[in-house]
Amino acid sequence: MRKIGIQEIEDIAVGAALLGTGGGGDPYIGKLMAIQAIEEYGEVTLLDAEEVPDDALVVPSSMMGAPTVMLEKAPSGEEAFVAFQKLETYLGDKIYATFPIEAGGVNSMLPFALAAKLGLPVVDADGMGRAFPELQMVTFYLDGIAATPAVLADEKGNTVVLSTIDNVWTERIARAATVQMGGSAMTAMYAMKGRNLKESGVRNILKLEETIGKTIRKAKENNANPIREVVKSVKGFPLFSGKVKDINRKTESGFARGTATFEGMHENKGETLTLRFQNEHLLARTEERLLCMTPDLIAVLDAETGLPITTEGIRYGARCVVIGIPCHPKWRTEKGLATVGPKYFGYDVDYVPVEELAKEGVRS
Amino acid sequence: MRKIGIQEIEDIAVGAALLGTGGGGDPYIGKLMAIQAIEEYGEVTLLDAEEVPDDALVVPSSMMGAPTVMLEKAPSGEEAFVAFQKLETYLGDKIYATFPIEAGGVNSMLPFALAAKLGLPVVDADGMGRAFPELQMVTFYLDGIAATPAVLADEKGNTVVLSTIDNVWTERIARAATVQMGGSAMTAMYAMKGRNLKESGVRNILKLEETIGKTIRKAKENNANPIREVVKSVKGFPLFSGKVKDINRKTESGFARGTATFEGMHENKGETLTLRFQNEHLLARTEERLLCMTPDLIAVLDAETGLPITTEGIRYGARCVVIGIPCHPKWRTEKGLATVGPKYFGYDVDYVPVEELAKEGVRS
Repeated sequence: MRKIGIQEIEDIAVGAALLGTGGGGDPYIGKLMAIQAIEEYGEVTLLDAEEVPDDALVVPSSMMGAPTVMLEKAPSGEEAFVAFQKLETYLGDKIYATFPIEAGGVNSMLPFALAAKLGLPVVDADGMGRAFPELQMVTFYLDGIAATPAVLADEKGNTVVLSTIDNVWTERIARAATVQMGGSAMTAMYAMKGRNLKESGVRNILKLEETIGKTIRKAKENNANPIREVVKSVKGFPLFSGKVKDINRKTESGFARGTATFEGMHENKGETLTLRFQNEHLLARTEERLLCMTPDLIAVLDAETGLPITTEGIRYGARCVVIGIPCHPKWRTEKGLATVGPKYFGYDVDYVPVEELAKEGVRS
Repeated sequence: MRKIGIQEIEDIAVGAALLGTGGGGDPYIGKLMAIQAIEEYGEVTLLDAEEVPDDALVVPSSMMGAPTVMLEKAPSGEEAFVAFQKLETYLGDKIYATFPIEAGGVNSMLPFALAAKLGLPVVDADGMGRAFPELQMVTFYLDGIAATPAVLADEKGNTVVLSTIDNVWTERIARAATVQMGGSAMTAMYAMKGRNLKESGVRNILKLEETIGKTIRKAKENNANPIREVVKSVKGFPLFSGKVKDINRKTESGFARGTATFEGMHENKGETLTLRFQNEHLLARTEERLLCMTPDLIAVLDAETGLPITTEGIRYGARCVVIGIPCHPKWRTEKGLATVGPKYFGYDVDYVPVEELAKEGVRS
């Protein structure tokens, strides 16, 4: 158990955006919301998963929708509160703690904003260890935990409570409702017991995010380039150095979908990297080689500052380093790959772990 | 108070389909469902609105979605039951009686099927006196009665509970959810007290439907044409005699939208009638004259049997008589016309009551 104040939030926001692999929302907005709440209500208690009683009710707080919409329509915090209240009424139980459903600039931060307001602790665990675009894409789903009862709440005062036969149906109906609600909504779903979070969550993810953020901050203070150290801290691999030469992005069916291409620099001169995304970066390849694919993490970093760039933040001409990070082992199981592997997203490639792709020696 | 058995159901189904103005679902399916339930559970008690206690909770049971989908996917009855159960749990109150939300081959019948199963009475009132495509289009909405809490249930076992800031938002979100649920869902919404139904409902609508159905049935038994008598019983106007020469229909965004054209016969020889619909018939005009428009009722009848034809039942070559019927006076108020007038549906015409259009003397 320890306290999370403003410096910790700043660091976690950066690390979360990096593990968010382009999605999970803008780190600036998320950070602001968490900081405002901490300034108003005080620091937030962070619990290790072990510190949560087995029978305590824990519920992640998150935003659903296209991150491109979040830029225009930041949640007020009231929606998250309404969603939690509705869920408590529905379940007839009090929520003991909250936690992030995924890593991401917004979705790692929202639980802190809500926790500060409600005086709840946050648990150091999430349901992905990265970000993914659909709501059944959580380690909890792999272990059979229901998303429902699921509450959606928008900033206008509309709420939807879903009870579905499986989590894929939750995704389908909630996505359609979210589109009507203006493209994004706050959610309270995947209510579970402490023991479920311990067994099925990705633990110590906030600690990792904080380490990443701190590494990048310290490097800046020392005018150093943090990328090598960041790659080491996440046990990742540098994949490509390049300059954005084309970016094609549209918001459809509640998702930000698109492709970015990077013209190689330095050791990648003459090569072109194509990056496909749906809210998150999903596949990185050159004409010759596959570099990394979902469920492994693909992060695009500013070549100088090492700061992560979200899919909606990719700008023409930006100099970037693209890195790959092995995903949580649960994603590499049969059900994991069926849920979030490259074929699920329509890419006709067989999954190969990033460390094997890197070992092939094509990269120095 | 009286009992509704199989003969009454047969008659009401036909009259309801006629007042359904092309929408409200296929009368054959609705009738079958009500008859099966009455055969299994016994006759249903029909109450006059006056017989319902002011404080009793009454809830209409209806299907939402495109009638073209209902043809392929008839509700089992279980969904309606689940929707009522969920709503009772949510409200913490027992439902005293049910009633139809609108006139229509399916939506006038479903309350009888559910009532038989649950042993509830049906009240002789609905929320339209006809059928309309969107769920805020009820006389209850004109009087400020909320649609929510609104429950949707599908045949797979998914449910959605909506709580929205107004009934237009209920429509938007419920429509999107319904599309995901396969194009149709059973609903329990517009829960109200007996006094609300008395004040805001369209009363004695089932009695009128039964009269229409009986008139058509008796005429068939006597080999007579019932259209003249039907027109009289609904205080309506014959508008056009013609043969279907073109029908253009598609299901989009959960609605069956389209246009039918009729080549004039008899006194309409040389004229062409164009009929526009969105689940229900909304506008009837020739090149020269407006004949009838929403919210007044436009019914397409088989020229020989007088049986009503739904939008999805209009077939090339069919000989029809199109009739117009004045709507309930609530629809002719300012809010009524803003909600369901021709401009709401995108037709750039000012509303003129069907009796005035008929008086203009162009018709004999």
